[in-house]
Amino acid sequence: MLLRRWLAETHTPVAEGPLRLTIASLPLHVDVVYDSPTGAHGFGSIGVLDKSGRTLVSADPALLAAACSADARARSRADAPINAPESGTLVDWLLDALPRREVDPLPLPDDLVTVGRSLSNAAEAQRWLTGHIEERLLPGVLASDGADRAELTARLLSRGVLVVVGLLGRRGVVHEEYMLAELVKRLGAIAEQHPQSADLIDHWLTSPTLTDLAALNGSQLRYRDETGAVRVRPVAFEVRNPLRLEPPAAVPGVPLPELGDGWSLRPVAITGDDGGPDVELVHRWMNREHVAVNWNQDWSLKRWRDELATQLAGEHSVPCIVSRDGRDIGYLELYRVQRDKLARCYSHAPHDLGAHIAIGEPDAIGKGVGSALLEAVARGLLAADPACRSVVAEPNVHNGASVGAFGKAGFARAAEVGLPNKNSALMVFPRPGE
Amino acid sequence: MLLRRWLAETHTPVAEGPLRLTIASLPLHVDVVYDSPTGAHGFGSIGVLDKSGRTLVSADPALLAAACSADARARSRADAPINAPESGTLVDWLLDALPRREVDPLPLPDDLVTVGRSLSNAAEAQRWLTGHIEERLLPGVLASDGADRAELTARLLSRGVLVVVGLLGRRGVVHEEYMLAELVKRLGAIAEQHPQSADLIDHWLTSPTLTDLAALNGSQLRYRDETGAVRVRPVAFEVRNPLRLEPPAAVPGVPLPELGDGWSLRPVAITGDDGGPDVELVHRWMNREHVAVNWNQDWSLKRWRDELATQLAGEHSVPCIVSRDGRDIGYLELYRVQRDKLARCYSHAPHDLGAHIAIGEPDAIGKGVGSALLEAVARGLLAADPACRSVVAEPNVHNGASVGAFGKAGFARAAEVGLPNKNSALMVFPRPGE
Repeated sequence: MLLRRWLAETHTPVAEGPLRLTIASLPLHVDVVYDSPTGAHGFGSIGVLDKSGRTLVSADPALLAAACSADARARSRADAPINAPESGTLVDWLLDALPRREVDPLPLPDDLVTVGRSLSNAAEAQRWLTGHIEERLLPGVLASDGADRAELTARLLSRGVLVVVGLLGRRGVVHEEYMLAELVKRLGAIAEQHPQSADLIDHWLTSPTLTDLAALNGSQLRYRDETGAVRVRPVAFEVRNPLRLEPPAAVPGVPLPELGDGWSLRPVAITGDDGGPDVELVHRWMNREHVAVNWNQDWSLKRWRDELATQLAGEHSVPCIVSRDGRDIGYLELYRVQRDKLARCYSHAPHDLGAHIAIGEPDAIGKGVGSALLEAVARGLLAADPACRSVVAEPNVHNGASVGAFGKAGFARAAEVGLPNKNSALMVFPRPGE
Repeated sequence: MLLRRWLAETHTPVAEGPLRLTIASLPLHVDVVYDSPTGAHGFGSIGVLDKSGRTLVSADPALLAAACSADARARSRADAPINAPESGTLVDWLLDALPRREVDPLPLPDDLVTVGRSLSNAAEAQRWLTGHIEERLLPGVLASDGADRAELTARLLSRGVLVVVGLLGRRGVVHEEYMLAELVKRLGAIAEQHPQSADLIDHWLTSPTLTDLAALNGSQLRYRDETGAVRVRPVAFEVRNPLRLEPPAAVPGVPLPELGDGWSLRPVAITGDDGGPDVELVHRWMNREHVAVNWNQDWSLKRWRDELATQLAGEHSVPCIVSRDGRDIGYLELYRVQRDKLARCYSHAPHDLGAHIAIGEPDAIGKGVGSALLEAVARGLLAADPACRSVVAEPNVHNGASVGAFGKAGFARAAEVGLPNKNSALMVFPRPGE
């Protein structure tokens, strides 16, 4: 249960088969025996690996809770609520919950747990779905006038019917895809019969992500209320929407922006066996300490040559070198959000574009150069693709300088998103007027 | 291993048979199957109890580590090093140590672990002891000129030979009492042959307590070094000395001090079925919130009558009512340290006396009344028993007002001692000139 939540809340890709991951400093191995579209994955036993990669012990729930807790705290800034002593930790919750026989920091309503455990075939599941929609979901939707869309989505969908669909799928009672298709059909019918529900249901059926509640990861999480009593106060986050059955619209590759104002930009050129001067430049920048601490890509020249060649051959991203007044000063990766890991993290529009930036030359840092460049890139990308609604970036929440530079450039901090190796501040530069 | 340490570091009494205890908020049950004089107890499985007192699950090591960690942090003041984020926690240590196959935050030297595991009978154990004393302990003692006595004791004795004696005892290889008696005999011989070692060895053979290292409990504990690397920095604490084989000297009961300066003192008088006015007064004071939060003895009148009668019938402590200028204002318990739980916590002298105090009348609080009374009590006790070397007290480290009042009265803060339900500041008022 904890592992399932951790994978969802850090947007870690999961596929059937062996999975290795490190939570806090704990290296783990697990066999994914059931890969679920709603995140209700099934696992074999979870093992702790020793230095040589062999399974040392099986990871008991308390160890996993401790690791998830340490991980969430390290991902967040030291001054974030989750790191305040009065916020408590997931371990405090466990110590309090265990003697009360609670096992889930975000429990489902009892009746839904019973349903998830007791139904035994597809016909029963379909009958339950019909009843649940009529008695719970539809009244909830119709009574929702003025309620917060995110709150409704989490309560009625992500932490409601979708959890039951996942439980039934993991138990082998009925394929999740079947139940999801049924749910989509019923929701479509409701939207037709009850026009006041159409906006909400349209969001549920078309948004790339849905709001869920996080109990393990998020700077704003707390495990104690004002009185010091142990109580989980979850935070909202976005998960991939399993109801959006149609494939995402085709979008073209990444356009090259015009930057103006003394800036210029060129895709990295690869020449010769060793990659040539551009590759050498990127390799040198990436191995400088001030870049390496944030990018963690202080790789060999060869690995960078291969990486850049792979990027140039695909449509996901374009690696570029940025110059100011003719002098090469930094590295820029422009990407389509829809093809990036960010796609499962926020409710993006199909043409949204993103940027990673590294100022490689130390003497070009800290003089407003970065924020000026970021603003030029954002404006240039919006001009280069008229269908692009926003330009985004995802600096590590620990990287205050970078978050600050994006802010100064006109990006707004929209959310915190968990990624497999860090928590990022989602920075959004919307098209002016939108 | 963690439970053994927790019991030692909190000076919790242990006896063979069932043991119930609460670490942090986790109620636990364990069968003590081997009760060791050196603290090397053997346990059956450790169970977590639910609200109704039934065993819910078995407490895995990670859960126990989490509970011990939460417990140690809650026992210490919020501003203590153990609660500083940069100090890390026992759980950080566990997450780091597990993949490296470490199981003990204070590992023994490898050769001693091997010895503890490999010897198989009393004759082998005795031969090992002879060799160990000649090759390790004696050279250590002789090279000790100028070294810190506490450090030597922990390294050579508590964290050295005594751990092996405990391991052998728990494994059933040889009775610990036999090995301890042998060790005492050999140490005595060393003191005779090497007069420069006599002071140290005399301390080892006669002190009521020996210095050991704590890895779970203590305000000064840290689990990270300056670089942020996970490393346990243990703190010193005192454990009961298993080498002190002779019973403690007989000491008389608690003398009644003369307080002077408008103060007077009388033992609680018990009269009639309900105990009479003194018992009623103590009961009333103990149920006032400002007293109850520190004493946790907001009991019924009947329970207090029984408690006071028990105290008056024994030689451990004398319950008294204190008056100022004829008005009853507070409750005082005077006790012989040697008969108290504090006896196992610091290297007391046989005649040391201790005091617990509660100012029951709210209008007598916070005007220096408490500290004036404490000084009068300390001076009075030292005068009443000329053999008494120190008067001590053990206020909760969280109770800053009480620690401050003892300080103002002339008590020095000598150490922090773990007790089963709190960490106390050991406050010592020495006989002037000692």
